[in-house]
Amino acid sequence: METMTTFEEPIRAHVRRMMVAWNAHDMHAFAALFSADAEFVNVVGMWWRGRAQIEAAHVATHRTMFKDSQLSGEVAAVKAVRPDVAVAHLRWTMTGALSPAGARIPPRHGVMVFVLAKDGGEAWTIRAAQNTDIVEPPAPPGR
Amino acid sequence: METMTTFEEPIRAHVRRMMVAWNAHDMHAFAALFSADAEFVNVVGMWWRGRAQIEAAHVATHRTMFKDSQLSGEVAAVKAVRPDVAVAHLRWTMTGALSPAGARIPPRHGVMVFVLAKDGGEAWTIRAAQNTDIVEPPAPPGR
Repeated sequence: METMTTFEEPIRAHVRRMMVAWNAHDMHAFAALFSADAEFVNVVGMWWRGRAQIEAAHVATHRTMFKDSQLSGEVAAVKAVRPDVAVAHLRWTMTGALSPAGARIPPRHGVMVFVLAKDGGEAWTIRAAQNTDIVEPPAPPGR
Repeated sequence: METMTTFEEPIRAHVRRMMVAWNAHDMHAFAALFSADAEFVNVVGMWWRGRAQIEAAHVATHRTMFKDSQLSGEVAAVKAVRPDVAVAHLRWTMTGALSPAGARIPPRHGVMVFVLAKDGGEAWTIRAAQNTDIVEPPAPPGR
């Protein structure tokens, strides 16, 4: 059960808008949630610098491997660093992604961290995001 | 070549201390660089909450897979979110890690993001960190 506070709710809403934009494959709306100088590191360690790079990279992948993908998840934690700076963690599941050969791949799970700030006005923007797949450990070696 | 500023240098130094503590396998010194309520997501999506969990998890891995590991890298970016809040990115290389079977594994590369804050006094502490392996894309399917 989520604890909702006046502080947390607009941040949770901002992260949910990211998922809505992803699921609509509207990468302009997606990128608009980030600041102009935002940093984004994806699950394989690709690092995009600035909103324009973030948009271009996601436009490319949403034409291919992510074109039918759907993202869902829960904002599992929100912490205030300052009254106008926060760190939020999203636990997510992605379905419908495609392999390079065009086959559906099984659902993936991960954790994404966001640094958000209010920079003039009341709106939050994402200043940095980093995404990591949850990888189950391999079975211990057999005897 | 790094651009050094009065703002950036103490932050770069703090991240370098993290690598020094790692390489000495001193996980108490490592954890002391984090705030009491810090969040840490590792490369396989394990999420530790608070300094005590961060220390305990790293004590365990530095007895096993990371006991001979060495971390090096460059603080590739530092950005001020506020005068007393920053986001820093480390590009790192790890050598000497062991597989579950005890064999040396090849060097790994990754990107680690840090959210740092000054909370009373002049010292920076890490409020959140997340780590992601750099994974080379698979070769395109052959014909």
